Amino acid sequence: MSHNTFGHLFRFTTWGESHGPAIGVVVDGVPPRIPLVERDIQRYLDKRRPGTSRFVTQRREPDRVEILSGTLNGVTTGTPISLLIRNEDARSKDYEAIKDLYRPGHADYTYDAKYGIRDYRGGGRSSARETASRVAAGAVARKVLGATVKIRGALVQIGEHEIDRKRWDWRECAKNPFWCPDARMAKTWESYLDSLRKAGDSVGAVIEVIAEGVPAGWGAPIYGKLDSDLAAALMGINAVKGVEVGAGMAAATLTGTANADEMRMKGGKVTFLSNHAGGILGGISTGQDIVARFAVKPTSSILTPRRTVTAKGKNAMIATKGRHDPCVGIRAVPIGEAMVACVLADHMLRHRAQIG
Amino acid sequence: MSHNTFGHLFRFTTWGESHGPAIGVVVDGVPPRIPLVERDIQRYLDKRRPGTSRFVTQRREPDRVEILSGTLNGVTTGTPISLLIRNEDARSKDYEAIKDLYRPGHADYTYDAKYGIRDYRGGGRSSARETASRVAAGAVARKVLGATVKIRGALVQIGEHEIDRKRWDWRECAKNPFWCPDARMAKTWESYLDSLRKAGDSVGAVIEVIAEGVPAGWGAPIYGKLDSDLAAALMGINAVKGVEVGAGMAAATLTGTANADEMRMKGGKVTFLSNHAGGILGGISTGQDIVARFAVKPTSSILTPRRTVTAKGKNAMIATKGRHDPCVGIRAVPIGEAMVACVLADHMLRHRAQIG
Amino acid sequence: MSHNTFGHLFRFTTWGESHGPAIGVVVDGVPPRIPLVERDIQRYLDKRRPGTSRFVTQRREPDRVEILSGTLNGVTTGTPISLLIRNEDARSKDYEAIKDLYRPGHADYTYDAKYGIRDYRGGGRSSARETASRVAAGAVARKVLGATVKIRGALVQIGEHEIDRKRWDWRECAKNPFWCPDARMAKTWESYLDSLRKAGDSVGAVIEVIAEGVPAGWGAPIYGKLDSDLAAALMGINAVKGVEVGAGMAAATLTGTANADEMRMKGGKVTFLSNHAGGILGGISTGQDIVARFAVKPTSSILTPRRTVTAKGKNAMIATKGRHDPCVGIRAVPIGEAMVACVLADHMLRHRAQIG
Amino acid sequence: MSHNTFGHLFRFTTWGESHGPAIGVVVDGVPPRIPLVERDIQRYLDKRRPGTSRFVTQRREPDRVEILSGTLNGVTTGTPISLLIRNEDARSKDYEAIKDLYRPGHADYTYDAKYGIRDYRGGGRSSARETASRVAAGAVARKVLGATVKIRGALVQIGEHEIDRKRWDWRECAKNPFWCPDARMAKTWESYLDSLRKAGDSVGAVIEVIAEGVPAGWGAPIYGKLDSDLAAALMGINAVKGVEVGAGMAAATLTGTANADEMRMKGGKVTFLSNHAGGILGGISTGQDIVARFAVKPTSSILTPRRTVTAKGKNAMIATKGRHDPCVGIRAVPIGEAMVACVLADHMLRHRAQIG
Repeated sequence: MSHNTFGHLFRFTTWGESHGPAIGVVVDGVPPRIPLVERDIQRYLDKRRPGTSRFVTQRREPDRVEILSGTLNGVTTGTPISLLIRNEDARSKDYEAIKDLYRPGHADYTYDAKYGIRDYRGGGRSSARETASRVAAGAVARKVLGATVKIRGALVQIGEHEIDRKRWDWRECAKNPFWCPDARMAKTWESYLDSLRKAGDSVGAVIEVIAEGVPAGWGAPIYGKLDSDLAAALMGINAVKGVEVGAGMAAATLTGTANADEMRMKGGKVTFLSNHAGGILGGISTGQDIVARFAVKPTSSILTPRRTVTAKGKNAMIATKGRHDPCVGIRAVPIGEAMVACVLADHMLRHRAQIG
Repeated sequence: MSHNTFGHLFRFTTWGESHGPAIGVVVDGVPPRIPLVERDIQRYLDKRRPGTSRFVTQRREPDRVEILSGTLNGVTTGTPISLLIRNEDARSKDYEAIKDLYRPGHADYTYDAKYGIRDYRGGGRSSARETASRVAAGAVARKVLGATVKIRGALVQIGEHEIDRKRWDWRECAKNPFWCPDARMAKTWESYLDSLRKAGDSVGAVIEVIAEGVPAGWGAPIYGKLDSDLAAALMGINAVKGVEVGAGMAAATLTGTANADEMRMKGGKVTFLSNHAGGILGGISTGQDIVARFAVKPTSSILTPRRTVTAKGKNAMIATKGRHDPCVGIRAVPIGEAMVACVLADHMLRHRAQIG
Repeated sequence: MSHNTFGHLFRFTTWGESHGPAIGVVVDGVPPRIPLVERDIQRYLDKRRPGTSRFVTQRREPDRVEILSGTLNGVTTGTPISLLIRNEDARSKDYEAIKDLYRPGHADYTYDAKYGIRDYRGGGRSSARETASRVAAGAVARKVLGATVKIRGALVQIGEHEIDRKRWDWRECAKNPFWCPDARMAKTWESYLDSLRKAGDSVGAVIEVIAEGVPAGWGAPIYGKLDSDLAAALMGINAVKGVEVGAGMAAATLTGTANADEMRMKGGKVTFLSNHAGGILGGISTGQDIVARFAVKPTSSILTPRRTVTAKGKNAMIATKGRHDPCVGIRAVPIGEAMVACVLADHMLRHRAQIG
Repeated sequence: MSHNTFGHLFRFTTWGESHGPAIGVVVDGVPPRIPLVERDIQRYLDKRRPGTSRFVTQRREPDRVEILSGTLNGVTTGTPISLLIRNEDARSKDYEAIKDLYRPGHADYTYDAKYGIRDYRGGGRSSARETASRVAAGAVARKVLGATVKIRGALVQIGEHEIDRKRWDWRECAKNPFWCPDARMAKTWESYLDSLRKAGDSVGAVIEVIAEGVPAGWGAPIYGKLDSDLAAALMGINAVKGVEVGAGMAAATLTGTANADEMRMKGGKVTFLSNHAGGILGGISTGQDIVARFAVKPTSSILTPRRTVTAKGKNAMIATKGRHDPCVGIRAVPIGEAMVACVLADHMLRHRAQIG
């Protein structure tokens, strides 16, 4: 059962609300004797941190992680690793006005429908703030995977504006505020988002995550397939509405002849001449790059007034104030990377368990 | 852990290879005193059964289900329900020729890479034949859900040919061999698939599954979200490369203003003016229709020769003979319905557990 | 969740009622390329089989196992292993008379209280017949553990009659119908049970299971401790009321000085001078023999009339006819061995997953 | 998988080492809208707290609990409840001397054997300090169960000194430092433990936990039986070597005639004339009191020198200094209660899930 726990052998449990004293995550199943200090985690939290550019929320959270257990002298001991991040810039008063209003596109109504109670302050548990815990867990997952597995994400589409894959350059990602691998498209996005921001609107995006160095053989068919677990992991990120592996939804348009990733021996090793499969066949990694994509819907908190209802069942209008991301897809890049890392770490251990 | 088990409270475990004596599924967690006889399951197996038209594989399997446990006098007892389906038309000799050849796009290579052994006869465990077990489990899930929840699937795209949603008529689905809700498009598909079949090629497809009658409140955030579990369920079906909920990948192109599913009171009830969310917000059902889609890649077994390698590491060519589906997407319709039913039954029980 | 599934990485799911067409078990997570044929399983089923002496039930079941999946040419493939055992000597009519009577000490009343329905024929799902599935799973577990781990059980007490541990000789176990390692005590038991049988009564017993060759390090603290999992496994066997590891309940009477298993180096290896711990410290194996014991209550089905109530809520008397074991503890020996084997196989894989 | 997670629907995950900055627990699956404030938890922590009498360790820990998430205005919200307890009186220096020495009876050697690293300070993760987290989780479980289920524990044996059950008076438990229901025996224990303490020795004990008010029907056969889960829960407590339900190990000595808990209708309700079953039949509660017992071995940390080995493989002698309990069984009473409460809360939810 997995209300708030993700994974099986490498597994993490998150807790915490947007405006409570802190959020956190307990990471369990980590092999012993792996070097791990707070700095290893902090660098990924810094990628997700709010307030780093005008294109993300202006909430000022240092997101400083503390390791409370599970390491000794900078090395894991095999016991659960408890990570704590304090909430420092919560402005709960911003939310008093919408305490009884359901924001369309938000989980306000469904949390109330399910639980009959809801922490309305900053979205409570349903806030994207929870994803900081995932990023922290992902940083630990990377240490478990080791240096041979390299996981990188990029923003490949905002609204209708897709990158040109011929211009893909990983080094560009760190040079613009979008994790965009296409320098020219980054410019386009900048002016597009500025205009959206001024209009009090928001927009969706597509993120692509690529894992290099995954050996052939990871994945646990039939109901622990690598792609199935990736799909769950990515669809479970706040605001995600679609997930693709390899050719993705476009696989529907391909013929068998075109789709076949043909194989050849090369230097004594099996190689593939294409990667429509996204590195996964029958739920098991092929040894090629794992390629996953996910679409994030536009931020639901917008300044434009929308029709809604109150908790008491009255019609009303709402325009969300507060500090929000015009495109949550941007900060979803390190989150997507983290989830992919966690899935892979789990499957590395699962594979080792069964196969040795 | 879930190598071959799906679900938590409503859960099933499948077993069996394409060319072994039988396949089967054990369904556990079913509430007691629900009427259940073989006929309730058989009708869904008949939808998935091969050999029903010239557009699906010509393997002749009656797929007759036997209930071996868990019922008494046509009623469930709360104990595990074991369902058995014998394999009757396995032609293992068809596969002798490709015993040491890896079919591109198939799981042949990855199973060998993972396990160091592989049941090559008809794809063994990775065969789509396993999905009969899912359909059987799905039939039980429907009984658990009861009559108020209605789950229906349709084929909405083959290759580049998409249906016209304005012509959507559920009654058409049973009238053509594609489960196509658009009578006119069914004609187009017929001639398109005929030409593909003659060319020895295959093509992908998109299936849409809609669940009506799901009350608001199902889903278990943060890591048991309803959409996350649906994504895992659908991505885990053989050959699936993409999964969407509601607006899906297209959510990336929407603005917040357009994407907001506005709300109004209507007859004392909360209603939504649109359903970009696909019936799920924050991982919890909204009470609207649950709308999920998935893309199936083209059958990898094609007559056109493709480059490949042998298990011994030699380059080779392969053209798959045997009996195959030119578009596996067709038979994926009842499978998608079944997986959605199983996810919903599981979440109905999970919701009841926590909320009462 | 685990209604009918046991274990995590090495895991099995059982199904079937005493008087249904068959019972069975699906064993999942088994490493590939392990030799496994029906004979490997049958030898353990033959140990548990009814009708082998006058001290066990006279139901005549060959308990012949069929492997339906998961192997190819006598070797495991890493996919789920489905095992089927047909019920052949079910005499459901014997149970018509007690259809509405609750047998004291049996699960009749509680199954009805829980499920509102109950398969009364031969105890249905609560019958000890289900344990054949465990024995089959245990046989597979032994293959996973390999030859270095040796698991043996013995009956050490019937009623007040305890064996003399100084006379313990494993070879004796196969020479008497009780799996008794003390030849002299076996004689006492024979006459004691004969008199009980004639009196239409039954009696309890204690079984001890010892696993040799388990290396130090298995077990997953804090909530997957090896002793905790053994306790669950053994307490879950029908009719078990107590479980002990090492010194067991008697540990309460020891002083710290006496209880300490002192340690010395011997031939470069850590050795222990005693084994009050039963081979487990902090939930992790020490490398010593794992020693577990469990007490089985007397068969509840006895000829002596007892007071009871009917399903309709009337007072009544009951004297169970049918074919029963005067001491179910005897046949519990191979069942206890099987459960210990399954726990160890699971922990071997879990340990390998985390530690490599 | 459950390295550090206990339970399924009501589930908790603990973390933390004896001498780290804090320990804690995340409780998940709690139904919403249950009143819960820190005081509800603190009262049970105070029962387990060290330093309350001369018979328990003199470590001075206030064990003050903080609720970090999962409640709003003193009521649960259905989201995970994170509880934190800071370590305040850790004296890690006391442990420098035994850093490389394995204390017999402790988990020192096995943690090293398993993980190749060990937090030696105060026993690290294997310290009984972790049980404070269980007690905190147990307090939440009691709130989930509600007032109709009453769970109480008592110490019934220290060394050879057993209470006289005819003198059992629950009110006495709070009047002596042992949770002893037999006032006269409490006196005997006082002088017995004083003499042991002076001799630098320790002794074992037996705890009995009784749950009243559990309705008939809880428990999930076959592998989620109520007694099986209780056995795992109690055997998993530090230092426990034996677990009994109802008649326990003594069931072996009973005849079927004596063991049968006969039934009669009384005021229209099913009643039992005895309770050898300890309130559980076939893994399902009968509606009688649930009666479980467990034996705790003597504290391994004793002043008397014992033979041991060093981490480097040298023979050595050890006499543990530091602050320890002469009889850890005393503080095991609230821990046992807590584990029983957690098992019952989990099964209450599981039962509700399947049966409604």
